[in-house]
Amino acid sequence: MTSTATEAGAAPETRSVVVERELPFPPEKVWRALTQPHLIEEWLMKTDFEPVEGRRFHLTGDWGGVLDCEVLAVEPHRTLSYRWDFAHEDPAFDLKSVVTFTLEPTETGVRLRMEQAGFRPNQKQAYGGAMAGWPRFLEKLEGVLAGLD
Amino acid sequence: MTSTATEAGAAPETRSVVVERELPFPPEKVWRALTQPHLIEEWLMKTDFEPVEGRRFHLTGDWGGVLDCEVLAVEPHRTLSYRWDFAHEDPAFDLKSVVTFTLEPTETGVRLRMEQAGFRPNQKQAYGGAMAGWPRFLEKLEGVLAGLD
Repeated sequence: MTSTATEAGAAPETRSVVVERELPFPPEKVWRALTQPHLIEEWLMKTDFEPVEGRRFHLTGDWGGVLDCEVLAVEPHRTLSYRWDFAHEDPAFDLKSVVTFTLEPTETGVRLRMEQAGFRPNQKQAYGGAMAGWPRFLEKLEGVLAGLD
Repeated sequence: MTSTATEAGAAPETRSVVVERELPFPPEKVWRALTQPHLIEEWLMKTDFEPVEGRRFHLTGDWGGVLDCEVLAVEPHRTLSYRWDFAHEDPAFDLKSVVTFTLEPTETGVRLRMEQAGFRPNQKQAYGGAMAGWPRFLEKLEGVLAGLD
């Protein structure tokens, strides 16, 4: 696993969180875990996601928090991208970001790359949270994948 | 552990989530874990909490979500109560709740009771999330307590 921060992002002056994983599973199986709501719920959050461009959906946390999301790109077994927004009156918390998963086949499975782009310089806490949170989410994703047929 | 839902709440027509735990730790130690930000962060969320009535603070999740909170009552080693609000344009997600921790000394430690009150009938998801989330939060709290001097 590599976990790197880059200065590239959705817009100038924003940062991204990038986490990569080499997974010993075929791209088709990883794609299922990224796109089926009952599986997304196991590793990320409860959701009404559907893999359809333009689809608006929510990701909701157990503690009452809600992310407002929209599917931006769907290329089965290769790329999934969606808006990951959080509205708050304090600009330090008001987040407009884009999460993009990229799957690249390898000899032993797939290289999964997750980039969350759009953190502004004043959003240090959201950025730090994502840096801490994504490795945990992807660890749970690997557990879900290990349990799939 | 008991985990019960009651019809009692902050107002008519609202529901509460109640979770109780018998903990083999003195009330003073449990109080520390409930009120010191660096400990709260280990079992609940990142926060700028202070145990002062009227203090406004945030609880922030790793995925960018933020709860707006305010301390309502502080009775050291006995009671802690705070608003746990989440603003959202959709009434089903717009949450105004109150979390109250009550500590009752026992022969072997303390009985900790957590009640989150204020879920309206149309907030089934937030209510279900809290029902699922609090046992997990309190399990992590026990782990934090086990590691304290």
